[in-house]
Amino acid sequence: MNYDDNNIFAKIIRGEAPAYVVDQNKYSLTMMDIMPQSKGHTLVIPKEPAVDILGISDQGLEQLILQTRRVAKAVDSAFEPDGVMIVQLNRAGAGQSVFHLHFHVIPRWGGLQMAFHSREPEQSSVLEDHAQRIRSALSAQ
Amino acid sequence: MNYDDNNIFAKIIRGEAPAYVVDQNKYSLTMMDIMPQSKGHTLVIPKEPAVDILGISDQGLEQLILQTRRVAKAVDSAFEPDGVMIVQLNRAGAGQSVFHLHFHVIPRWGGLQMAFHSREPEQSSVLEDHAQRIRSALSAQ
Repeated sequence: MNYDDNNIFAKIIRGEAPAYVVDQNKYSLTMMDIMPQSKGHTLVIPKEPAVDILGISDQGLEQLILQTRRVAKAVDSAFEPDGVMIVQLNRAGAGQSVFHLHFHVIPRWGGLQMAFHSREPEQSSVLEDHAQRIRSALSAQ
Repeated sequence: MNYDDNNIFAKIIRGEAPAYVVDQNKYSLTMMDIMPQSKGHTLVIPKEPAVDILGISDQGLEQLILQTRRVAKAVDSAFEPDGVMIVQLNRAGAGQSVFHLHFHVIPRWGGLQMAFHSREPEQSSVLEDHAQRIRSALSAQ
């Protein structure tokens, strides 16, 4: 699959679409998932255009996983979940829905139950509050 | 949680416990998950002792994600799934069951359905066959 410059994450990186941005640097942008699987569900995406994990440079991937770890630590601190799951889906057959590489950081409570299939949009005020809590936790690292 | 030198993955790294090893280098060991969630389910673990993603060095984590990508590409080539899911679980509350950091590489077929909770051991001959297919695909990269 070729990279589509008009996918929603590309637009967010260019500032052409809104997002609950938590953090960004030269290599990556971190934002809230607007249809969270749990409280504090965050996405870390590279600024480099890449459809999935096979399409990014080594340096881009290294920077992405280091930022994903920073975010996992901040989410852990901000929400105190029982655990944190990191998920990265490649192609529609694995559940990928936006074709710009992204790592999910998903806080988990109460065991293994997951709801991949019943995702609902979260309220704006909740997402902004969660974004602010993770920003604060990142600042404190 | 402190790192337990006697966890099963530590024993596998030291050669004290058996495993379907696919590949290893200075930084990581790749092997079949013996209770696969799908055909070709593979684990990539660092040789550095780390309970979870928060406990590993930057260099160790960079090497681990690069190897995870190599394995994802090989699994993709060997089994031709609809997609590939990469999962990394931190703490029991997120479903972690061995307390040595590991990345799951899970081929996916037929949509989002997952069976985290009904894992069954796979036959030895099947695991060895799958390991060999991934080794061959890694050699061909």
